[in-house]
Amino acid sequence: MSFSNGVCQLSCLRSVFLTFVMFNLHVHSVSVNTYIVHMDKSFMPKVFASHHSWYSSTVDSLKSRNTALSNNPRSSPTLIYSYDSAAHGFSAVLSPDELETLKKSPGFVSAYPDRSVTLDTTHTPEFLSLNPYSGLWPASNYGEDIIIGVIDSGVWPESDSYEDDGMTPVPARWKGVCEEGQEFNSSMCNSKLIGARYFNKGVIAANPGVNISMNSARDTIGHGTHTSSTAGGNYVKDASFFGYAKGTARGLAPRSRLAMYKVLWEEGRYSADVLAGMDQAIADGVDVISISMGFDEVPLYKDPIAIASFAAMEKGVLVSSSAGNEGPNLGTLHNGIPWVLTVAAGTIDRSFAGIVSLGDGQTITGWTLFPASALVKEFSLIYNKSLSACNSSHLLSDAPDGIIICDNTGSLPIQIGRITRSRAYGAIFISDEPELRRSMPCPGVVISTEDAPALIKYATSNKDATASIKFQQTILGTKPAPAVASYTSRGPSPSYPGILKPDIMAPGSIVLAAYSPNNIAATIGAYIFLSSNVAMLSGTSMACPHASGIAALLKGAHPDWSAAAIRSALVTTANPLDNTMKPIRDNGDDNMSFASPLAMGAGQIDPNQALDPGLIYDATPQDYVNLLCIMNFTQSQILTITRSKRYNCSNPSSDLNYPSFIALYNPNVTETIAKIFQRTVTNMGEGAATYNVKIVQPQGSTIVVSPKTLVFKNTYEKQIFSVTISYSSHKEERVSFGELVWVEENGKHTVRSPVVVSPTVKPTGLISGNTSLLRCNKWTAIVFINSLPEAHFL
Amino acid sequence: MSFSNGVCQLSCLRSVFLTFVMFNLHVHSVSVNTYIVHMDKSFMPKVFASHHSWYSSTVDSLKSRNTALSNNPRSSPTLIYSYDSAAHGFSAVLSPDELETLKKSPGFVSAYPDRSVTLDTTHTPEFLSLNPYSGLWPASNYGEDIIIGVIDSGVWPESDSYEDDGMTPVPARWKGVCEEGQEFNSSMCNSKLIGARYFNKGVIAANPGVNISMNSARDTIGHGTHTSSTAGGNYVKDASFFGYAKGTARGLAPRSRLAMYKVLWEEGRYSADVLAGMDQAIADGVDVISISMGFDEVPLYKDPIAIASFAAMEKGVLVSSSAGNEGPNLGTLHNGIPWVLTVAAGTIDRSFAGIVSLGDGQTITGWTLFPASALVKEFSLIYNKSLSACNSSHLLSDAPDGIIICDNTGSLPIQIGRITRSRAYGAIFISDEPELRRSMPCPGVVISTEDAPALIKYATSNKDATASIKFQQTILGTKPAPAVASYTSRGPSPSYPGILKPDIMAPGSIVLAAYSPNNIAATIGAYIFLSSNVAMLSGTSMACPHASGIAALLKGAHPDWSAAAIRSALVTTANPLDNTMKPIRDNGDDNMSFASPLAMGAGQIDPNQALDPGLIYDATPQDYVNLLCIMNFTQSQILTITRSKRYNCSNPSSDLNYPSFIALYNPNVTETIAKIFQRTVTNMGEGAATYNVKIVQPQGSTIVVSPKTLVFKNTYEKQIFSVTISYSSHKEERVSFGELVWVEENGKHTVRSPVVVSPTVKPTGLISGNTSLLRCNKWTAIVFINSLPEAHFL
Repeated sequence: MSFSNGVCQLSCLRSVFLTFVMFNLHVHSVSVNTYIVHMDKSFMPKVFASHHSWYSSTVDSLKSRNTALSNNPRSSPTLIYSYDSAAHGFSAVLSPDELETLKKSPGFVSAYPDRSVTLDTTHTPEFLSLNPYSGLWPASNYGEDIIIGVIDSGVWPESDSYEDDGMTPVPARWKGVCEEGQEFNSSMCNSKLIGARYFNKGVIAANPGVNISMNSARDTIGHGTHTSSTAGGNYVKDASFFGYAKGTARGLAPRSRLAMYKVLWEEGRYSADVLAGMDQAIADGVDVISISMGFDEVPLYKDPIAIASFAAMEKGVLVSSSAGNEGPNLGTLHNGIPWVLTVAAGTIDRSFAGIVSLGDGQTITGWTLFPASALVKEFSLIYNKSLSACNSSHLLSDAPDGIIICDNTGSLPIQIGRITRSRAYGAIFISDEPELRRSMPCPGVVISTEDAPALIKYATSNKDATASIKFQQTILGTKPAPAVASYTSRGPSPSYPGILKPDIMAPGSIVLAAYSPNNIAATIGAYIFLSSNVAMLSGTSMACPHASGIAALLKGAHPDWSAAAIRSALVTTANPLDNTMKPIRDNGDDNMSFASPLAMGAGQIDPNQALDPGLIYDATPQDYVNLLCIMNFTQSQILTITRSKRYNCSNPSSDLNYPSFIALYNPNVTETIAKIFQRTVTNMGEGAATYNVKIVQPQGSTIVVSPKTLVFKNTYEKQIFSVTISYSSHKEERVSFGELVWVEENGKHTVRSPVVVSPTVKPTGLISGNTSLLRCNKWTAIVFINSLPEAHFL
Repeated sequence: MSFSNGVCQLSCLRSVFLTFVMFNLHVHSVSVNTYIVHMDKSFMPKVFASHHSWYSSTVDSLKSRNTALSNNPRSSPTLIYSYDSAAHGFSAVLSPDELETLKKSPGFVSAYPDRSVTLDTTHTPEFLSLNPYSGLWPASNYGEDIIIGVIDSGVWPESDSYEDDGMTPVPARWKGVCEEGQEFNSSMCNSKLIGARYFNKGVIAANPGVNISMNSARDTIGHGTHTSSTAGGNYVKDASFFGYAKGTARGLAPRSRLAMYKVLWEEGRYSADVLAGMDQAIADGVDVISISMGFDEVPLYKDPIAIASFAAMEKGVLVSSSAGNEGPNLGTLHNGIPWVLTVAAGTIDRSFAGIVSLGDGQTITGWTLFPASALVKEFSLIYNKSLSACNSSHLLSDAPDGIIICDNTGSLPIQIGRITRSRAYGAIFISDEPELRRSMPCPGVVISTEDAPALIKYATSNKDATASIKFQQTILGTKPAPAVASYTSRGPSPSYPGILKPDIMAPGSIVLAAYSPNNIAATIGAYIFLSSNVAMLSGTSMACPHASGIAALLKGAHPDWSAAAIRSALVTTANPLDNTMKPIRDNGDDNMSFASPLAMGAGQIDPNQALDPGLIYDATPQDYVNLLCIMNFTQSQILTITRSKRYNCSNPSSDLNYPSFIALYNPNVTETIAKIFQRTVTNMGEGAATYNVKIVQPQGSTIVVSPKTLVFKNTYEKQIFSVTISYSSHKEERVSFGELVWVEENGKHTVRSPVVVSPTVKPTGLISGNTSLLRCNKWTAIVFINSLPEAHFL
């Protein structure tokens, strides 16, 4: 499957709060573009001392030709980056003519325009059962000496999450540096934050004359500070978001090292910079790459993350990536790359509450995130029909002093806005819609329609009715949790639907982590903006670093595991049940039905189980190349990814040794199909082991496994089995799912693979563009700033 | 000197913020009153098993007589409290007739109407040079096992300041209890908060039918929580007042025990309750009593604090009290009781700032306490003459978005109010008046007129002028500090001007300590009220517990020291210099001239120096009686205080062995006087010591000391010297002052006594009343709620 146009989406979902302090993009419309050019290094003439000089000379030769033709200095080709670790090639600003000339140069593999990237926290360690007494934390020494490279918007180095208390010295193998820059110097790095580099030549090339407002690895957006502290932030005592979620904050791998590669800029986000950042991270020697962004609707050979992560995978570096926030429609996922880990977002068993105490002793718990210790105490409770729509500034300005009750009519955000601008001492809103629970700039709470009658009865039957509201309440253990976040992007993967994506789900909704204090984190009233050292953000951007941190822990516990082995362990041990012991539900489904693996992969990530998975589905670089070989890619397209001719297409195969299964059908054709998969599992347990298969059949399909028992005599022994899925296509495009579980006879290990039967899905809801340069600035980060958990729906 | 009327002041200074949540007093006007009755226990008939049964019987006898005369049940006499430790006697509700009958009863000493009490925290330990490495903290083991009884408004037991981490078990000698009550149970006490009792029979008697809103030792006012945590609160990490004054909070004696006696009520404050609380504290066995309140313009024999503290002094219990907040006029002081420590309030070397950064790189530091992390960043700076008075809501409503500059015209509080209700993103006010720096409910700062021209020049010369303001800045080491707070009440003491009062000064302005979170601690905007577990309060109420905590430390280091010895050590080692090494200045003086001892006593309390004072001016109970004997008091009036006939008036003397000197003159008579004082000093140093006198002469007076050298051969040896002050009266009522210093020859000890020459001062600015019951509710606590440091001036 290939895509004819490499485009991304122009929808720029920025919160109204964010736009307030942020830049406007400068769009320029000259005919030159930045291109990422992949070269075959075996063509490099021996006269060049380095790849860089070869690329440079190649670009110069275009330039000399060009200068002869034109006096326009802007049309001179310019080398932006040379790449050598993540890709072989370079990026350069080229005119269409120059590009055509370049294509004829020796060693040219492929070229495509630079494009913009789509972007995708601390009770979660407990929620994931990480603990100091047993399991992955002690087994990995909390990730000590594992280096997580985070490709993002930089770091706010003064954040307590980057303190190096308790950290041992930096390992000698580390080649990274702390680059100096604007408001950033090398003393800001330490043995926790061991590297900080920045890459903005792509932004500058695309926006000539642009003023880079923070020309360093310093994070003025907050995204990179949040993701990196989630993955590997140190312990920060007494963290809270304006009194909510109080406790000790820390990353999932609190003793791991962090290296930041800043590629996202207020001024734009470009694939040339992303590729440069990943290139450098691999060269520096990171162990895990965390990348909370993605390119939508690009084929693998034009996706810098796919290209760079192939090189990472070759070196045993797991790339953990975000699935995107384009759910709940099917086929919306990005980073559905066969050799990366693709992470969906789920909810957390935590909510933020205000407790309403009525004068008669009744109490009602509502939702709020009012960002201060508001004292709303024994004030008059006001409920009358002329006011209770709470949509008239005029009526509210004449309201008596007290707490206004707002009926479940009209728009909750408008009601909140009107109350915020009124003289009310407080408000009680009535709504069952969790998606509307965003910002609370006034001392108000949202209660359910179920609780409303008692409130209204008291308020109307008692002329001296009073109420108090206690804010800053944090409720843990809410059920059911996790649920699949409605926004999380769904498979099948547009870039290759034959591999089940996403792989797993991790906590992504309303995650507390470090933040850049130069940003608005909340508002009080209409004109008072607040900053914070932490923020509650939601999105797959937040889920991804959870998985990255856990992958770092696994790498620490099992230094010899391949990226595929780490992913396999995470997938086959993921938990499909929520905290009510029922299958995880899907918030994106109106019926709140059970979530499909196209939404959450194998289920909720389970770090302690992943430590000891029993069996592993491993894969070698050649295995992935065998998959590429059936994708109808040209040799150049494949070489763009693989960089090296040492791989061959002698064994093309769709049968990648993946720990999950997807059987696709064409909904336009009525037929019954049998799809056969072959898998190899490696025994990672101690010594001999016998496993029996257990199957949960997808509705309307039949899974047959052969053999039904696997007998291993030794550790690391491999066994092969086949899976035959017999299924029919459905015009109603029904997705059904089941599971294939290898259960060890002694009950010690359970190795579970999700199985999906799905129609092939045309990506919907995505805007197609042409192949020319687009600057997309969509945040798949849902900035939960002043609580916009679902801002992506705006 | 005696006072003909025992009255207190009716001015009820309640902050506008406080009144919001508080009660209204219920005044009743029946002809009965509560009286405090002092009895001579030697008259108690042997038939009575206890003093209580005698008093009860006495009151019953009045009742039976009365019932015969009237059917009005309200006029039946009612016993409220029996007192036995602080006083001998009881309180009862009596009619005038019943009082007259009672006066004829055997053993009757005196009676006076119950009256209302006038009420008067954590960088201060550092400011006072307390440290873990040397001096009073380690020498006293931080006050371990010293019990501080706090007579106040109760405690908020959940405050972290009352956690007992690090505390050893409660000493067996302790007789106190944790009384159960409304929202208070005994489990709220622990080995830090070892007692909690409440006394409100006086309030109830004075306000029949009153509903006590919190009938327990729980503090709903916040005053007692603040004072007790200042004296002996445990360590509380990461305390701050809305981001200001961040750090570890703890009391001055962080390992001492606290026992709370709640006598101040939202419903009123009465001497009967105060006396009951002190009576119980002495009976329970406290080591130090801290009482941040006082009775104005009452003679010693009608002042329950004077009466109870005499009993405390007899038992070696130091009573530390607040001077009052009626400054800066002379003669405004209360608690000027010869046998207590009277504490004045000073400023701290700390200020709370907002840093203004202009678009051109200039920065200006201003004052603010805006209670949130406001993000005011690169907003337009607006200065134009039509707006800059900032007194028109109409004009401000049309102002462009941005930061408004308000000129130094009109009223700063009104400007702040107008901006708070406007759409401004921020404001810069211009004012040099520190007294106006109260509440800051909008994101604004106050800058000085000195800094204003640069701001205005930039704003007017640049149409794109922008500014940012960084809030929550705490600046330490501000100079000069301390200064005498303008509000602190001044001597001479109305109740006995012949003893120099106040004794010492302690930090009292903008003190951070624990607070009751049910109260408003700050506001944002016009309608959003905030609570906090800590508050910044100002007043002598805050200075007093500093001295109480330090007295507890001294008691811990020197368990055998009398109350007079502790006070002498504090006075003679107090520091008369500020942190610029110049004499401490007086903020209450328009010329900011050097403070007189009538404002600050001997100077700033210096705990480490007090540990080792060299010489001590000690005093016995009989010494105080000798002083009482020259006061023109009747025998009954003296017995009211002394309770026992074992004291006699055979040696009446004004020459109390006090560590300071005051020479009074009558400004209405022109004469030259020589006043002679005799003092006895005890050598507390190790072994032999020789001291030479050093005198700083008061302007226009002459001090002669004889002998000029004191030679001690042994520790605890006493030496006598005389001091002759020759001075003239002045019609302009000038106060002059000097000092008398005994300097040890080896330079090891310096024993300094302040000397004042002062006119006799008629108390000014105080309202006189009659002897009937008044309910005075004045807070000498300046509630710095939302930052009203000088609210007492309102």
